[in-house]
Amino acid sequence: MEFQDCFPVWEKLTSAQKNEISENLRSRSVKKGDIIHSGNADCSGLFVIKSGQLRAYILSDEGREVTLYRLFERDICLLSASCMIRSIQFDITVEAEKDTEVWVIPAEIYKKIMEESAPAANATNEIMASRFSEVMWLIEQIMWKSMDKRIADFLLEEASIEHTSRIKITHEIIANHLGTHREVVTRMLRYFQNEGMVKLARGTITLTDQEKLKSVCNA
Amino acid sequence: MEFQDCFPVWEKLTSAQKNEISENLRSRSVKKGDIIHSGNADCSGLFVIKSGQLRAYILSDEGREVTLYRLFERDICLLSASCMIRSIQFDITVEAEKDTEVWVIPAEIYKKIMEESAPAANATNEIMASRFSEVMWLIEQIMWKSMDKRIADFLLEEASIEHTSRIKITHEIIANHLGTHREVVTRMLRYFQNEGMVKLARGTITLTDQEKLKSVCNA
Repeated sequence: MEFQDCFPVWEKLTSAQKNEISENLRSRSVKKGDIIHSGNADCSGLFVIKSGQLRAYILSDEGREVTLYRLFERDICLLSASCMIRSIQFDITVEAEKDTEVWVIPAEIYKKIMEESAPAANATNEIMASRFSEVMWLIEQIMWKSMDKRIADFLLEEASIEHTSRIKITHEIIANHLGTHREVVTRMLRYFQNEGMVKLARGTITLTDQEKLKSVCNA
Repeated sequence: MEFQDCFPVWEKLTSAQKNEISENLRSRSVKKGDIIHSGNADCSGLFVIKSGQLRAYILSDEGREVTLYRLFERDICLLSASCMIRSIQFDITVEAEKDTEVWVIPAEIYKKIMEESAPAANATNEIMASRFSEVMWLIEQIMWKSMDKRIADFLLEEASIEHTSRIKITHEIIANHLGTHREVVTRMLRYFQNEGMVKLARGTITLTDQEKLKSVCNA
């Protein structure tokens, strides 16, 4: 896969802008579990994902986490270059959930192009709107969806991302994704197991009745 | 106050773009309590607030509300023109909290200018980033701040917006702002009253010890 294929605004840039990006584009490999971006001060640049998977989350003072969204192949991570946009007044952390390869456009290069190119600025707008939409979805989940639905939804999403019904994950990690406590997750998973929807084993959860899990989500 | 004073990107537009806006700019007056924008399908345009106060919120299927942010004089309401940005995939409602005067730039006019002008597109980016930041602040509040702190914070903010320590508001309305139930608010306000921080009367809450309320927020 080529960089241009993952960077839709490419065709609308001038030759000078394309050259500027090409000359400054870097590749970076990160291992599963690595923190690739942390907080507002860390303005690494725009990440364009070649392969792998990233997770963006926020951290409380006490170290609690909530997952905001995930990024996959061809997605663009904008908030790792949040210094480019003055009004972004929040800190997120981005971690590699799998071994990941990214292209990095340094923030100062992208910022300059965005200032002179309406197509680049509008493309940036669309990326921010996508992330904003995911966060709005999350607020609705947190405010109005009970934890049984959120956990059922999370399990189905994981199974879909990993293309398997046997998910390798701990209860602690699910709690971190959803911003709750491990005990809450464990209690709910045991209930799901009693209802025949999952089978629990050390470090894995097997979805044994996805239709029934879906009916929990939609109840 | 002139429109140009509230629309910072004005000086960076071409004469043709300025003319296009001037020719299509409308004024609109809304009464306190009026819904000025509702949902994604309603793409009224960009509102620039001349005077008054707007509230943006989300609604659950059951009619529960949470306030996302407020907009004041000189603020620009972008999400009332959300059709301009394809990736905005959520619905908000905007209501006038006071009698309000806005200038409206029709969505199709603004969209056209944004597509050709990098300064306009970047200004739009900054507006979206501001709203995104307010929503991120809200998520942190919801996830990690207990209801006593959120109510104390809300009372102090109301007092500051209204320039008075005697706030005219019902417990029901506070509950709607914070996405909780009236009973929760009433119970907490009674606790605040017992602690000497507020004095409750029918339809009003008087803040009698703002320093102590601040200490609740920062505890």
